[in-house]
Parts: sequence; structure tokens; C-alpha cells
Amino acid sequence: MTSSNKEKETIIIGIDPGTRVTGYGVILSSGGTLKALDYGCIRPPPEGLLSDRYLIIHDSLQELLEMHSPHEMAIETQFVHKNVQSALKLGSAMGVALIPAKRRGIRVFGYSPRSVKCSIVGTGKASKEQLQGAVARYLKLTSLPKPQDAADALAIAICHAHCMQSQLSTKNEL
Amino acid sequence: MTSSNKEKETIIIGIDPGTRVTGYGVILSSGGTLKALDYGCIRPPPEGLLSDRYLIIHDSLQELLEMHSPHEMAIETQFVHKNVQSALKLGSAMGVALIPAKRRGIRVFGYSPRSVKCSIVGTGKASKEQLQGAVARYLKLTSLPKPQDAADALAIAICHAHCMQSQLSTKNEL
Repeated sequence: MTSSNKEKETIIIGIDPGTRVTGYGVILSSGGTLKALDYGCIRPPPEGLLSDRYLIIHDSLQELLEMHSPHEMAIETQFVHKNVQSALKLGSAMGVALIPAKRRGIRVFGYSPRSVKCSIVGTGKASKEQLQGAVARYLKLTSLPKPQDAADALAIAICHAHCMQSQLSTKNEL
Repeated sequence: MTSSNKEKETIIIGIDPGTRVTGYGVILSSGGTLKALDYGCIRPPPEGLLSDRYLIIHDSLQELLEMHSPHEMAIETQFVHKNVQSALKLGSAMGVALIPAKRRGIRVFGYSPRSVKCSIVGTGKASKEQLQGAVARYLKLTSLPKPQDAADALAIAICHAHCMQSQLSTKNEL
């Protein structure tokens, strides 16, 4: 089957950063279709030092980048947390995730949770279940992607694929 | 000259993280005396992408760690910024600074600006000039350490040296 609208294949890794759970989702965007390649969560031992957890997140992502060789990274950036201490911790996890990507020359794009929901479900107020359902439909998964952090990471990657298609991604580059 | 109270020599790198300016200060703590080994600032080009700036901070710190082989890192952690977006950016710079230290097995300790001022000047409300003056006296510098971010980083390192002497540092490990 040929397509006059053929696009280059782009592998995108989506990241939902967190010090307890960092979700990741790797998708292939090709000719307007999307396919899940891998998804899951990095869960550093919660009893460990915060700095050890950051190192585990860094090293695990580095392994994932080596395994899948993504072309671009999309990461959740604007957290709704009002607490400055939570924002500092989440910001640290985000910074830690950027380094192995930039080291490999991978461009990194940031999306707010609201813009991800708008892009995937059509409303910024979508529930977690609606988001999981939409992710499953986009990627033609036979069951809902779980756990939630992995589904969120896949949603971030899909959001970036949409923005790339509409050439709106550049303004989101970090 | 001998001392019955001889301590092991400890090299401490203090870090005042920031996306525009990251201050660093390296001190040697030996037998109750402190000496400045190096201090300065990392200033990524402000016009660059945020992610490029993080990579520059990471790589510059990695070079400093290779150059000075510090035993411990002390970093400013609790920022007074009320703005969550600022906290996210500063958190990212902090996370980025931790990685090269943890990679080398260097323990990292976090101190709030207030606890640094209390430790160095004796009051949490000390002015920047008071802090610079106190840093100069502790390190027997012939002039005030500048720029401010480098002086702040030296102050963080001195604060950690004080906490080590009073065996209060462990609770600050990140």
C-alpha cells in the first residue's frame, strides 16, 4: 500500500516525570499513523535518598534512549502543584530527564497537562479514564494502557506527534 | 605545628543553582580551618534553549568535579520563589547539578538560604554584603568574593563544613 502523503518515520519518547514514578511511552509516528513501541514506569526505591532516585531516573532513561533511539522527546512541564517544594522536586526530575536526551542530540519539547488533554481528548478537563481510552484508540491497543503514569507518557508523545503534524511543535521546544 | 584535634582534609563544592547563573565555590576544610580553592560562575548563553543551558551547567560541573575531586557537594535547595514556574526551572538546574556528583559517588547535601545565612552570619536575615564579608573573613580572602552567586556558593560550602564539624550534616543529605 502506498501513500501520497508519506511522512518520514519519527520515534518519540514521552516522559511524565516524578520522583516516585516516572512514566515513559515510546511511539512510532509514520505516515499519519501512530504505533506504541514500549511503555512503562521507572520506580526508584522510595526508601532511598532523593539524589539516588534522580540518578536511577537518569540512568534508566539513558538505557531507554539507547534501546529505542528516539528522534524527539516530549515531556510534561507545567505541573499544577501549588507547593513550591513539590515543584522543585518535579523540576529536578525533569532536569534529570533532559540530560541524557540532550547528550544524544535529541530535541526536547514540553507540554502542559492541559494541552495534552486538549490534543488527545479534545478538552482540557478530561478524566484519567478518558485519556487512557483515547490513548488506546490512537495506538490501537487491545486494552487500556497501564499504569496511569505510562498512559500519561504515551499521551504526551501522541500530543507531540499531533503538534509535529500541524507544525506547532517548535514553540514548545525546551 | 601539630594539632590534637586534627581532622581529615575534606574538599567541598558549594553550588548556588540557577538557569542564568550557577555559582560554584570549592573549599578545603582541614583541621578546623577553611581555604578557598576556586570559585566562579557558570553562565550559559541566555539566548540559548533552556535544555541547552541545562546541558552546559551539567557539563561545566562535571569538569569542575574532575578538576577538584571534591568529597562532598552542598547545594542551595529551598528557594524563596513563590512562582511555581520559577521553582520548576530552579529545580531542574538543581537536578542537573546532582547527576555528575552522584555519578562520581559524591554525597550531596541541601541547605536553605536561611540556614546558610544563620550558619555564616548568625542571622537568617543577613544582607548580601554581610554574607560576602563573612565569607571573606572565614576564607581569609583579601577582597570580597564576587560575583554574588560565587560568594553564595562559597557560603553554602562553608555552611556544610560547619554542619560537618557539628555532625549535623547527615540530616541534610539529599
